[in-house]
Amino acid sequence: MKKALCIISGGMDSAFCSYVAKKIDNYEVIALHFNYGQRTETRELKAFNDICDDLKVYKKVVLDIPFIKKIGASSLVDESMEILASGKIGDIPNTYVPFRNGIFISIAAALAEKEGAEALYLGVMEEDSSGYPDCTEEFIKKMKLAINEGTKKETSLDIKTPLIHLKKEDIVKEAQNLQVPLKLTWSCYKNEDKACGVCDSCKLRLKGFKKANIKDEIPYM
Amino acid sequence: MKKALCIISGGMDSAFCSYVAKKIDNYEVIALHFNYGQRTETRELKAFNDICDDLKVYKKVVLDIPFIKKIGASSLVDESMEILASGKIGDIPNTYVPFRNGIFISIAAALAEKEGAEALYLGVMEEDSSGYPDCTEEFIKKMKLAINEGTKKETSLDIKTPLIHLKKEDIVKEAQNLQVPLKLTWSCYKNEDKACGVCDSCKLRLKGFKKANIKDEIPYM
Repeated sequence: MKKALCIISGGMDSAFCSYVAKKIDNYEVIALHFNYGQRTETRELKAFNDICDDLKVYKKVVLDIPFIKKIGASSLVDESMEILASGKIGDIPNTYVPFRNGIFISIAAALAEKEGAEALYLGVMEEDSSGYPDCTEEFIKKMKLAINEGTKKETSLDIKTPLIHLKKEDIVKEAQNLQVPLKLTWSCYKNEDKACGVCDSCKLRLKGFKKANIKDEIPYM
Repeated sequence: MKKALCIISGGMDSAFCSYVAKKIDNYEVIALHFNYGQRTETRELKAFNDICDDLKVYKKVVLDIPFIKKIGASSLVDESMEILASGKIGDIPNTYVPFRNGIFISIAAALAEKEGAEALYLGVMEEDSSGYPDCTEEFIKKMKLAINEGTKKETSLDIKTPLIHLKKEDIVKEAQNLQVPLKLTWSCYKNEDKACGVCDSCKLRLKGFKKANIKDEIPYM
């Protein structure tokens, strides 16, 4: 049985990605979720669980990594900082968590090695990634080289980023074909009950639905 | 003020390395330690604190990462597994924690980026590393490339491994010159009061002292 590890945050991108892993690439999915003290931790975990139920994953792993909050330096985890929308194009917004994806991928690699998974799916999208430096194709390539160097000889892990060159509207459009229930996903950085509609993450999501000419079914303020 | 981040486990190698960072390379040291549910967690933390006091570090950061134990798959953190000494040369012993150094280095990179540290010191030694795949020079090189790709443009982190081609006996011999108090360090995988003397880590340590013809001042069973 071919196994793939999918990091599922609860947002649209990683959810979509896990359906690609199972329904197109025919992997059994080991679903990995991180609680890291982000503001919408509880709501994201619910989204993760809802997606796992719908997708009927092979295994679920939820890891608490509160040290991310202790390192801080991001408005996503430091509630004394205001969540600012990004300014100039190319600027990194203050929701950037230092090397977050590097940490996530390293932990996922350890779990993949333990579970004998041959692929790791990441829902990163280069263009719609708010300018985070740890969401680029070049970064993922280099992490893959490091992981395969630093694990056992018999471990060979491919990192798959099927969305890397897609945009949010592509995901919204394709969701129906793959039967991805986007209404179960959560994107807002700020709120857990009704999405704020104005943070970077809500804006990207709403733009995607608008361009795809499809209604977003989650509640907004 | 030039700052370097040193991962200090409490063992001889990383302790020695932090003295190199401060006394030879003239960095202010930010000391980082991980509690990850290893069997000798309390004793290693004491060693870390003792070393930090002696070295007068600029800042101490202790991060709890219990998810390592949850991932498991190593006798170092899974107490249902017996700690076995490695068998054939080239075999990886069952104390290997999947991609542990990859995870440690990624977290350290995040902290280094936040603190504006320009160097990360690791006490890895290729020859005396028990065959762990995440202790090689080639792995460290690839992690450095990944980190500098996946962090902000203004972040430039060098990874320094001054011990990579040394052996334990070199460290024991050089410790006097650099005034590294090896008696404060702890290596045993099994015990916290008296070192067992027979696990891989004790054996490497004892061999180093023997070859250097110097007495190890920590208590053994």
